Amino acid sequence: MSIYLHDIPLDEAKKRIYEALDQYKLRGPLKSEKLKLDEKLVGRILVEPVWAKISSPHYHASAMDGFTLRSEDIQKAMPTNPVSIRVNEQAIYVDTGDPIPDWANVVIPIENTEALNEAGELEQNKRNPYWIRIRASLAPWTNIRPMGEDIVATELVLPANRKLIPVDLGAIAACGHSYVSVVKKPMVSILPTGTELVNVGESITKGDIIEYNSIVLGAQIIEWGGEVNRFPITKDNFNELCDQVRAAAEISDIILINAGSSAGSEDFTSRVVEELGELYVHGVAVRPGHPVILGMIFSKDKRPVPIIGVPGYPVSAALTGEIFVKPIVEEWAGRPSDNVNLIEAELTRKITSPAGDDDYVRVVAAKVGDRLLAAPLSRGAGVITSMVRSDGYAIVPRGIQGLEAGEKITIHLNKNKNLLSETLLTIGSHDLTLDLLAEYLSKKGKRLVSANVGSLGGLISLNRGESHFSGSHLFDPEDESFNINYVNKYVKNFRSVIIPWVYRQQGLIVQKGNPKGIKNLDDLARKEVVFVNRQRGAGTRILLDFHLGKLNINAESIAGYENEEYTHLNVAAAVKSNRADTGLGIAAAARALALEFIPLFNERYDLIVPIHIFTSEIFKPVMEAVKDEEFKNSVQALAGYDVSCMGNDLIESEN
Amino acid sequence: MSIYLHDIPLDEAKKRIYEALDQYKLRGPLKSEKLKLDEKLVGRILVEPVWAKISSPHYHASAMDGFTLRSEDIQKAMPTNPVSIRVNEQAIYVDTGDPIPDWANVVIPIENTEALNEAGELEQNKRNPYWIRIRASLAPWTNIRPMGEDIVATELVLPANRKLIPVDLGAIAACGHSYVSVVKKPMVSILPTGTELVNVGESITKGDIIEYNSIVLGAQIIEWGGEVNRFPITKDNFNELCDQVRAAAEISDIILINAGSSAGSEDFTSRVVEELGELYVHGVAVRPGHPVILGMIFSKDKRPVPIIGVPGYPVSAALTGEIFVKPIVEEWAGRPSDNVNLIEAELTRKITSPAGDDDYVRVVAAKVGDRLLAAPLSRGAGVITSMVRSDGYAIVPRGIQGLEAGEKITIHLNKNKNLLSETLLTIGSHDLTLDLLAEYLSKKGKRLVSANVGSLGGLISLNRGESHFSGSHLFDPEDESFNINYVNKYVKNFRSVIIPWVYRQQGLIVQKGNPKGIKNLDDLARKEVVFVNRQRGAGTRILLDFHLGKLNINAESIAGYENEEYTHLNVAAAVKSNRADTGLGIAAAARALALEFIPLFNERYDLIVPIHIFTSEIFKPVMEAVKDEEFKNSVQALAGYDVSCMGNDLIESEN
Repeated sequence: MSIYLHDIPLDEAKKRIYEALDQYKLRGPLKSEKLKLDEKLVGRILVEPVWAKISSPHYHASAMDGFTLRSEDIQKAMPTNPVSIRVNEQAIYVDTGDPIPDWANVVIPIENTEALNEAGELEQNKRNPYWIRIRASLAPWTNIRPMGEDIVATELVLPANRKLIPVDLGAIAACGHSYVSVVKKPMVSILPTGTELVNVGESITKGDIIEYNSIVLGAQIIEWGGEVNRFPITKDNFNELCDQVRAAAEISDIILINAGSSAGSEDFTSRVVEELGELYVHGVAVRPGHPVILGMIFSKDKRPVPIIGVPGYPVSAALTGEIFVKPIVEEWAGRPSDNVNLIEAELTRKITSPAGDDDYVRVVAAKVGDRLLAAPLSRGAGVITSMVRSDGYAIVPRGIQGLEAGEKITIHLNKNKNLLSETLLTIGSHDLTLDLLAEYLSKKGKRLVSANVGSLGGLISLNRGESHFSGSHLFDPEDESFNINYVNKYVKNFRSVIIPWVYRQQGLIVQKGNPKGIKNLDDLARKEVVFVNRQRGAGTRILLDFHLGKLNINAESIAGYENEEYTHLNVAAAVKSNRADTGLGIAAAARALALEFIPLFNERYDLIVPIHIFTSEIFKPVMEAVKDEEFKNSVQALAGYDVSCMGNDLIESEN
Repeated sequence: MSIYLHDIPLDEAKKRIYEALDQYKLRGPLKSEKLKLDEKLVGRILVEPVWAKISSPHYHASAMDGFTLRSEDIQKAMPTNPVSIRVNEQAIYVDTGDPIPDWANVVIPIENTEALNEAGELEQNKRNPYWIRIRASLAPWTNIRPMGEDIVATELVLPANRKLIPVDLGAIAACGHSYVSVVKKPMVSILPTGTELVNVGESITKGDIIEYNSIVLGAQIIEWGGEVNRFPITKDNFNELCDQVRAAAEISDIILINAGSSAGSEDFTSRVVEELGELYVHGVAVRPGHPVILGMIFSKDKRPVPIIGVPGYPVSAALTGEIFVKPIVEEWAGRPSDNVNLIEAELTRKITSPAGDDDYVRVVAAKVGDRLLAAPLSRGAGVITSMVRSDGYAIVPRGIQGLEAGEKITIHLNKNKNLLSETLLTIGSHDLTLDLLAEYLSKKGKRLVSANVGSLGGLISLNRGESHFSGSHLFDPEDESFNINYVNKYVKNFRSVIIPWVYRQQGLIVQKGNPKGIKNLDDLARKEVVFVNRQRGAGTRILLDFHLGKLNINAESIAGYENEEYTHLNVAAAVKSNRADTGLGIAAAARALALEFIPLFNERYDLIVPIHIFTSEIFKPVMEAVKDEEFKNSVQALAGYDVSCMGNDLIESEN
């Protein structure tokens, strides 16, 4: 627990570790290794400049198949005044690439010669006739690649620190080198530790945590130019961990201890570092990732080896890699850290941050019209899917308690910026069909990224121009219509098109065998029935509240009404895990988790698109999808879905 | 020779090979392989979607270290009304990640509890006291990560065709998988063939060609997601080549035969393809790269294996890889070919193209002000350094005989587009100090790219806004000044700053021992002395012509006056190789090639910068260089250079 007392600002933590790296002379690229030139060197970093040992070509070479001769000898040749040249006396045949003899200074292509026999008659053997007849003069050095045309001996061919691309390897060979000095790859040992950890592929029970942080960190290190040594899991045993760390120190340039998320493991790591070397930092004010440990230990022969205690939550672990490990590994690997993937984007919604922390917020990003937009994803340190889905992260620096929707923020993109122009951003109600649409679009070279804020939140975002389209299933009790009245009311900045998408069944998701005997909404008011709800603004929530009102059921009489989930699947998961007895959701979510489903209503889920986006190039593939039988069949196959309305009878909004 | 008769347009060639790939069902990703989940899978392509086998967390897990209990039991707790709870009856201690028992529904962090002994007194053992006292209520499910918070079992976690990033590997493990099906890497065999070829590292004599195309092609294939099998060099022997190709067919998905540049080798390749299978294309109207061969052969068990005859010139070979091999390997590897690195740029100078060919022109690119500019590099098919230096290529399609300076053209960038904003483009006279400056700037995170067009051409480009600065050594015979008069005359669109850069010695470069006894410019008129000149507009050429005029030496009396080279080093190389006896150039070029040097004049080489660029952020590192002692020392160390004027007494132009 004490660790949180030690939290220091990120800048200060970085300063401490870099002071130690300076002190122990661990800055700059690692020592070099001299390797035989081959294709596997692609991507490696040159230690020294490459100076040409020989020229390329290393001799005057014919650039054509033909006869090489003295240009003086054909100086007077003209179409009407051919000159005849004795082969093998005044001229010799050369293939492309053949050396030019010292006495010659031009090559005449074979197709520009007439081959003659000794008697002066045309003959077949074009390469070795007695005479050749030539009808045009050529300036000296025509059709010859002079020595050094490409590379002149002693010339600088490649600068130091160059990341080798394929053609570089050719240039290195061309100028006479057969070995290359490249930066050694940093060797990183990763030690997972924690009694609760089990290896990938082993059977698990409650409380077990599948150990995959070492795989994620390992893959990161490969991408940053390092090599990886993954150790087996160490249980929370101080001596055992010390032994492993000592062993790692002998073979590593840096050691990562990835503590399980239990409190004990973190303490072990800091104690091991103190035992074996120097502890510089114990806790950093960065979110996610607080319990970072930074230190230095020493091998038997006193070689300093930095050691980083990486927190156990998967998002914290991966971000600790980015923040602390990446710069060190890249510096050692000789790769300059570049900032070319920074963009300024507008936030689509407010985010709040603890004032004391540098807060790393994962986002998806897209270009909507002329605006670059970033939609924040789940903030949980345990939600690795938020990193899987993310296009990068924004940093809310400490001292700032959050940012408003519309504020500009710098995004560290993990993708090519140009991809953002090929990206459709949808903000609104989530539906399983959006996953199918995303897969359809990816085959067309487009991306669909989504943020789930419910139907109403989606329309409000859409009206602010923050998404390309919005999925919505908003029921209006007045006329029992879906969506159109809400669009008319909330999307006023432009006219929109409502694309009918699917009918889907909403109903109560209950446990297998329906042990509480739930039949309809009336049962929610029963004392022993625990409900799980959707968040405010969700179409499902509005539908529920409408029907509760009709049935005169008071929300306060429903146990669990205040427990909010953001997706149908999460509602189903809550039921599956006994956290609730029932929740309102779609049939497909119930089927996905092998739960039972009590159908109550049919509802319409539509896509809402501003008319200027509907008519633009980026939206075309969506309108192709609604006409694609294969796509529609995949939607129809979902439990409780009816695709018959898809793309028919488009509705324009009033505004 | 006959091959040029067969040249077909690029589109037609692609159509033929893809028709064959369709016919033999060789389209789409190769079959999959199922691999154990580990860090080495990063970058591989998923064959199938990953659906969650288990939820993550797979149980309700404590998100804090603390006590788990029923929220109902502390519903009335307030600061002034603490509630005491019996540990191990109503509450149990849990670490972060521990499972929550079925009867509990909340976790209260340990720091928010008071530990009491049986007597109700505060005690030290905070984790296992008799009572805990609590002074605040908590809503159900607070500080619990519910089962499925991250991933719900059955949910789609990753779509098919995904290129795996590090966190994906974590998500795959988290949802219960330990094996992953990824696309098999295409196996590409590369067979270098040609009697004139020698391996890297072997000794060479005139006419030998160092075989490195197979290394360049191999490295390209690794980058495109394939695996490489490089065969030893085959001499030009039909039967031997047939045997090698047959052997390759057994183990490969595709075969590349890289013919030497001699005519014979190409013919062998097409004959081998005809002998062993089907020949589709023999010669493509693409420049560079004409003699491309496309066909299909068959393994012993009749498996079709595409075969591509790759031309011998290194630029042709690498481009043939890009044009024909890359799309096939990427398709088989399951990697979508993206066009995200296309930009529109303005040409800095005119290019001419053969009307019948698709012409691939290598360029360097930079952003100057708001304009994206592309400067064409050397066009020679043998000049691999033009690929080493290039930022990408433009395609002048067949039917177009060239493009004018200022015309827009699509560039296929090989770099991140954002780098172009970190790039200084210099067009003008080349000087060795520009290489040193490039290295200095690269350490500052900037790039310097250059196109050599001579001093005058550089000023004209500068005036058109096509470069950031220009290196110039233009001598004015009128007042024997350097540069200022030319800048005033040719750079009229804006005021410029002339940055004094270096004094350097110009003189005659002669062979070792000076066999022709050359002493000064008078000797150039001697009949037995062959001269090598610089191109028109080069400062050196202007200097030469001025002094020849002063001495009344007629250019026509100088043998070799019409032979033009574009750099000092190429002039020295011409002398070194006996192509000329002497040329005018700088001392450093003579020293580089161990030639002798007869100093004649001192000249000034300056940098010319538009004032709006001089004052802008991008140019700052150059002005830092002129104050950097280490940089200046590296310049001073060049033969015949005097750095004393560098950066002193800046001159503003009139305009």
